[in-house]
Amino acid sequence: MNSRACLALAAVLGCGPLCLSSVAQTQAATATNLTPQQRVEQMIAVPNGAWTAGDLATMARLRDAAMSDDYAYRELRHLTDNIGPRIAGSPQAQAAVDYVAAEMRALGAEVSLQKTIVPHWVRGAETGALIVWPGMTPATTQKIVLTALGGSVATPADGLTAPVTVVDNFDQFRALPASAVQGHIVLFNEHFDKQLAAVGNGLSAYGDAVAYRALAPSVAATKGAVAVLVRSVGNADYRLPHTGATVYTDGIPKIPSAAVAAEDADLLANLTAQGDVKMRLVLTPQTLPPVPSYDVVADWKGTEHPEQVVIVSGHLDSWDLGTGAIDDGAGIAVSMQAIHLMQKLGIHPKRTVRFVAWMDEEQGGEGAESYAKDHAADLINHVGAIESDLGADHASGISFAGSPALADYLKPVAHVLESIGASQVTSGGSGEDVSALKGVPGFAPIQDSRFYFNYHHTAADTFDKVDPKLLDENAAVMAVLGYALAEADTPAPR
Amino acid sequence: MNSRACLALAAVLGCGPLCLSSVAQTQAATATNLTPQQRVEQMIAVPNGAWTAGDLATMARLRDAAMSDDYAYRELRHLTDNIGPRIAGSPQAQAAVDYVAAEMRALGAEVSLQKTIVPHWVRGAETGALIVWPGMTPATTQKIVLTALGGSVATPADGLTAPVTVVDNFDQFRALPASAVQGHIVLFNEHFDKQLAAVGNGLSAYGDAVAYRALAPSVAATKGAVAVLVRSVGNADYRLPHTGATVYTDGIPKIPSAAVAAEDADLLANLTAQGDVKMRLVLTPQTLPPVPSYDVVADWKGTEHPEQVVIVSGHLDSWDLGTGAIDDGAGIAVSMQAIHLMQKLGIHPKRTVRFVAWMDEEQGGEGAESYAKDHAADLINHVGAIESDLGADHASGISFAGSPALADYLKPVAHVLESIGASQVTSGGSGEDVSALKGVPGFAPIQDSRFYFNYHHTAADTFDKVDPKLLDENAAVMAVLGYALAEADTPAPR
Repeated sequence: MNSRACLALAAVLGCGPLCLSSVAQTQAATATNLTPQQRVEQMIAVPNGAWTAGDLATMARLRDAAMSDDYAYRELRHLTDNIGPRIAGSPQAQAAVDYVAAEMRALGAEVSLQKTIVPHWVRGAETGALIVWPGMTPATTQKIVLTALGGSVATPADGLTAPVTVVDNFDQFRALPASAVQGHIVLFNEHFDKQLAAVGNGLSAYGDAVAYRALAPSVAATKGAVAVLVRSVGNADYRLPHTGATVYTDGIPKIPSAAVAAEDADLLANLTAQGDVKMRLVLTPQTLPPVPSYDVVADWKGTEHPEQVVIVSGHLDSWDLGTGAIDDGAGIAVSMQAIHLMQKLGIHPKRTVRFVAWMDEEQGGEGAESYAKDHAADLINHVGAIESDLGADHASGISFAGSPALADYLKPVAHVLESIGASQVTSGGSGEDVSALKGVPGFAPIQDSRFYFNYHHTAADTFDKVDPKLLDENAAVMAVLGYALAEADTPAPR
Repeated sequence: MNSRACLALAAVLGCGPLCLSSVAQTQAATATNLTPQQRVEQMIAVPNGAWTAGDLATMARLRDAAMSDDYAYRELRHLTDNIGPRIAGSPQAQAAVDYVAAEMRALGAEVSLQKTIVPHWVRGAETGALIVWPGMTPATTQKIVLTALGGSVATPADGLTAPVTVVDNFDQFRALPASAVQGHIVLFNEHFDKQLAAVGNGLSAYGDAVAYRALAPSVAATKGAVAVLVRSVGNADYRLPHTGATVYTDGIPKIPSAAVAAEDADLLANLTAQGDVKMRLVLTPQTLPPVPSYDVVADWKGTEHPEQVVIVSGHLDSWDLGTGAIDDGAGIAVSMQAIHLMQKLGIHPKRTVRFVAWMDEEQGGEGAESYAKDHAADLINHVGAIESDLGADHASGISFAGSPALADYLKPVAHVLESIGASQVTSGGSGEDVSALKGVPGFAPIQDSRFYFNYHHTAADTFDKVDPKLLDENAAVMAVLGYALAEADTPAPR
């Protein structure tokens, strides 16, 4: 029972409150000169805050329209099925820029392209095979399912062959003698915390494990490893390797790096515990010169303060294995939907609602960096920036990054979203791209992350993984919050 | 409430029965001269049937030993992790024959090898790529995840390119004009019934869909298709193609055939609904001349009727994509466990308990056919044949294929298994191999099939998919039932 419900119950029962929070105590103190009916009314009322009753009614219209309009779902299908994988630097990424820009123009938004320079990494062949292991059948090999980490350097074209050493974590690695690493392929077998994800903290589980994907190549290279493998950072066991960016540290040799499927990590751990294991690894990605690319920027112009901007956004690039439905076609689609619904319903807020399709979130966030740099003097006019980048499962509310005062500020908006189960407001961060906009309050839908990391960065990140009703919920949060920030009497506290 | 519980309750309450089955009526009729206490006792008693109280106590010992002995789990790990995939005709299949024979000899069983001749099909390269589709980015392709069906013929080494036609089922195919098939790649997009699997009828869902895997190549070839694709017969969407045997019909051209992942079937259905789709398909499997192979036969000799045989079995071959843990390393492991436990506990039944590791269940059942042929005159001495081939999730009892009288016959055995939740007895069939032994009562553990087809015939059929406790349950059913059939005063009704 929360405190408001408790107080309301106490009032109805005509008895003293059973439990009191500080908020409830404040309410009780201000209620002394009111009739019992007025006191009850006050206890269940949600103030309008920075919005008029008319604004709140408009939010409700946007919410309801989002829940019954398949524009986002259709756009997502086109991005994923028709355009396909959209890794930064690829022809498909450029096609997606052109497509989304045209769609935004068709809605009447004012479209511009934010130029940036993105990495151009192209996946090649990638195979792993055990050639020596305990109990092997002579003259056979055993497949190791793996995929190159984004940005990985290549092995020789015909691969490299080396003994395999397995450690669970960096602590175990530090304890290894150099002889167990020098000339070896090292597997970091850090497990994704499935229990943490199962109770809803998928992003925390990801954060714990992803350090290995990012840092393992440099860590292993310091002791002379010839290649590095990491257990896939993911939550389901269907022999699916999860790619993702790795980071090489200046001054340390760059060694080929790949993610193995969970099953293959288990296999390597078991076999190396029994005896010597040798593996042949072929990775032939190419790191080509960086190329120009673009964020799509589409303004739904404000009527009173067009220079003041609220960003609704997702990232347009994806990884190359799947078609980027949950990461992050969904974020793009719900942001497009915010503009589409304002056009459809004829809603023109005071401030500009700016749709942004960020480029290159996955390999360094170059699009957001370029935007932040080019708009440095103007960020003061950015009253808020929303990004959806955790898929499209149930949206339970609004997460923010910024002033703690945002929690109270957003309450009236969250109240509008209560009927779709999205009334929570938490200080839980925003998105990777919008966090590059220093000083700008950041926001994101709070998304159910229990299943997101089943598919994240895999070949199985495809259109079918998105449920249309749940996508609509996310679109509702994006549209309502985007409008609310753009229409508020007072801008969001910084 | 079942009838026995109802009667017992009625007796305790001193009132007339609330519900009566024919069984209950019989019990009531024979109870007229007994004291109330005797009547109650009779109502809850399970007769010993074909077994002595000592036999039933031995079954309980076997059950308890199975639940606390990791032999099966360790053997499964060796078969899967150390030997690996064991497709019939492969060096690994032969290594598995040698290994299992040696393990059985080590237990003191009398080992022989049943010779057979098996197909020798070897997977090659397999890639699919769209080269034309609506909304495509010029000069790009889009990957189609697929795997050759077992036994498929090859495309030319550099593949074939053809327009794609998608139908949901054979009815739609029949309605197609020849022009939509001639020279086309045809996808049969029959969906695996996930709801049916979710409520426990995985095998029924499989049976409905697998007809397409088996028959589609011949059906499509009759109208001039150049290749055929089927939606993977499986239950989870992780971009995993499910292989499995296909069947070519004499007199109809053999065309290359592959299973696409569920996601890719969805993609093809969506894109072909929008316009023309062309695909490049490369499949280079080889069908080599058949080779000799073996069933491993290991006898735990009977003390009174050694010529009478009860088979405990699984199949030793697997598909080549995964390591064959649930299909059917688990069946082998629990059957090995039955012999191991009799050795460990010093149990020597009247009849012979014969462990059999069948070869080539997956590509035609040659091992079972050879056994049936060579033992044709002796099948009358086979009092029962058990096969576990539906994974190793929870075992809820015993399924049989044969006389309806087996249901009552098995009740005392099922009662022993009640404490591990395996008390059900149903006429639900046995295994593919033992069903080749015409006239021999067939048996199988009743296995939870809700998740089996998530992994079946995929690269993800690996050791980690087996839960040791649930494997033990299956081993308990195998050991207890194997012993029961071998020790019974009267053999199982035929």
